[in-house]
Amino acid sequence: MATPKSESRNTLDDTYAKLQQSSGAKMALLVMDGLGDLATRDQSYLTPLEAARTPNLDALSKDSAQGRMIPVAPGITPGSGPGHLALFGYDPLEYEVGRGVIEALGLGATLKGGDVAVRGNFCSLDAKGLVTDRRAGRIPTEKCEELCAILSKQITAVGDTQVIIQPGKEHRFVILFRGEGLEGPLSDTDPGREGQPIAAATPSNPKSAKQKKAASVIADFYKQALPLLKNQHPANGFLLRGIAHQPAIPTFQERYGLRAAALAVYPMYKGLSQLVGMTKIEGPQTIAEQFQRYLELYDDFDFFFIHFKYTDKAGEDGNFEAKVRAIEDFDAALPILLQKKPDVIAITGDHSTPCAIKGHSWHPQPVLLHSAFSGWDKLDRFTETGANLGSLGIFEAKYLIRHMQAHGKMFAKFGA
Amino acid sequence: MATPKSESRNTLDDTYAKLQQSSGAKMALLVMDGLGDLATRDQSYLTPLEAARTPNLDALSKDSAQGRMIPVAPGITPGSGPGHLALFGYDPLEYEVGRGVIEALGLGATLKGGDVAVRGNFCSLDAKGLVTDRRAGRIPTEKCEELCAILSKQITAVGDTQVIIQPGKEHRFVILFRGEGLEGPLSDTDPGREGQPIAAATPSNPKSAKQKKAASVIADFYKQALPLLKNQHPANGFLLRGIAHQPAIPTFQERYGLRAAALAVYPMYKGLSQLVGMTKIEGPQTIAEQFQRYLELYDDFDFFFIHFKYTDKAGEDGNFEAKVRAIEDFDAALPILLQKKPDVIAITGDHSTPCAIKGHSWHPQPVLLHSAFSGWDKLDRFTETGANLGSLGIFEAKYLIRHMQAHGKMFAKFGA
Repeated sequence: MATPKSESRNTLDDTYAKLQQSSGAKMALLVMDGLGDLATRDQSYLTPLEAARTPNLDALSKDSAQGRMIPVAPGITPGSGPGHLALFGYDPLEYEVGRGVIEALGLGATLKGGDVAVRGNFCSLDAKGLVTDRRAGRIPTEKCEELCAILSKQITAVGDTQVIIQPGKEHRFVILFRGEGLEGPLSDTDPGREGQPIAAATPSNPKSAKQKKAASVIADFYKQALPLLKNQHPANGFLLRGIAHQPAIPTFQERYGLRAAALAVYPMYKGLSQLVGMTKIEGPQTIAEQFQRYLELYDDFDFFFIHFKYTDKAGEDGNFEAKVRAIEDFDAALPILLQKKPDVIAITGDHSTPCAIKGHSWHPQPVLLHSAFSGWDKLDRFTETGANLGSLGIFEAKYLIRHMQAHGKMFAKFGA
Repeated sequence: MATPKSESRNTLDDTYAKLQQSSGAKMALLVMDGLGDLATRDQSYLTPLEAARTPNLDALSKDSAQGRMIPVAPGITPGSGPGHLALFGYDPLEYEVGRGVIEALGLGATLKGGDVAVRGNFCSLDAKGLVTDRRAGRIPTEKCEELCAILSKQITAVGDTQVIIQPGKEHRFVILFRGEGLEGPLSDTDPGREGQPIAAATPSNPKSAKQKKAASVIADFYKQALPLLKNQHPANGFLLRGIAHQPAIPTFQERYGLRAAALAVYPMYKGLSQLVGMTKIEGPQTIAEQFQRYLELYDDFDFFFIHFKYTDKAGEDGNFEAKVRAIEDFDAALPILLQKKPDVIAITGDHSTPCAIKGHSWHPQPVLLHSAFSGWDKLDRFTETGANLGSLGIFEAKYLIRHMQAHGKMFAKFGA
């Protein structure tokens, strides 16, 4: 929800806003997804960060502060959405991102605040309109693109609501409904099993006029779209799931006065950064290329969010060696960024993904903060155990950006 | 007060509740009362934990996370009530336990939410009804039991309010008034000095209908009880103190979905655990017997609260050697528990009781958290100074249970 739930949070944000000033500082937030890990017996009590050879991170540790960050609250394991919102300085308990929105982002959709995002699956219908295959035989991606093009060409709006259709892989696609007075969540139109008709999307809150409008827009969309697919068997119908609303979020520019660029490879992270109004930079595929692109864009932005996925992937697979390698790859590329060293560098994860857990976890992720004002915590390396001893302590991830702003001289003194 | 004072706390608790799932994990909370201590010159700068020989805790430290916990808020020294409520995951600023309630618990009373608990002293009255001895010459405990039996037999209710009378030591006893629409606190009926009549119990808030009802119930109780004691000089009257109300507290089962057992020796801790609905296990007198009982009950409960008093007693006496010995006794018994190792073990105190202070203190108590997901903080022992370096950091004690739940896999991921 976009409305702050807590008076005290609101007040502190107001204070930050009042003190905020532009300083011209360049800042880089380097996210090694799922970075944090555990020292377990199975891996000789070393974490991947401890086991990796990281000469460049080691060098940066000198003249850096370290700490650990609680992504949401003690014991809570975040998804990628809340993990990143916290890194961007938005309280993840205050600004929730619906599952449908995350899925839409993962499929490459570009959302704006207020959009209703829907995940679609093409399906097969029989003559009576009953679902015979909920995934339309997993049609090839090219077919999906072709069908989305047909729908996009014929249907650009329903009433005053703009309709944006984006194909995904195989039978999957995304629809965005963009316009005034829409809200989710609505129930799925996917009946969940074959032999049933397409269900109606119904408001979760029957009293919500906005949800009712969204339901009516979706029903009208079906009326227009189904005839267009009539002869497209096996993909002659579609089911909608995760009909979710993206509440308005103040943009990065509005909140911090910073022009922010997102250098991410995976759609989800591009999408999350766009939710807060960052500029999506397309092109780079490797971390070296991302850092290279940063050099080229140095003058055009104040803040660079650079996302590296492979630490998380390795953690999810429980592949310790791969996580070590991913960290070493990141480290090897780091000197590219340092050719034009930003005034403030933060290196961290959006959460921990311990190999022993093979999934996201609640363990605070380590963070390294480097600027002319970070001092040195007497730590020779950047590791979980070292970060426990750092001058930043253990703090809520939503405050990282406040530390970065402070190190970027973006806050006036509070009081005389 | 039962009503949450803070919107944000409430929201966070709601979030925890939404994410909560049952996992079948077994958890043990081992409380060495008053564990935390100080390294002072007088004791060669060793704390009792540092001075003690603790091979079993040392072994457990490997594969454990450590930290320190703020029992209530910085600088605040808790009583046993708030200290334990925080360990049980209830914000001690939100859920207060009145002094009369704590005293009633200490005398072995079994309270329910909504009860008004009162501490009574038998006293001597002269013919005019003036108090001549506020403690009735400290009658023997047997006499007290006899008088309580007389009262209990004759008075089981006042109107629709149930009356439960429990004898204590010497002249002391406890009354519980149980029924709808009662509330404290009321003023004492103890006039505070001899030569005065028994005072009326009056509402602290004159506008409270519930307090008025409680006052009227107590006045009626006096009318019925005093005639029964008429011939019992020197104990022919009684004075009431600490007339307090136990607000309803959601039970451990309601809040966490856990079947919890309390293995405590002292009445106060049995009582505190019962306030939150834990099952009181009677019998064991030593920590070895408590751990043994845990083994027997392993299948019947999900959560075991095991309370060890002697660290606190030694601290209160300023007896460093006794505190060291108590820790060593605890350590020696620990292998019994480890015969069926719970999935999650937390070892801590409810507060610090430094020998140099001879009383409870505000110093954060050390905590050790062991599970398959705790990793190792590279600390070879469990001590205050070591805990300062641990991955749990310094956190509010009320979050310990959230950490335990996370390690017990009791929380679904937050957001996608």
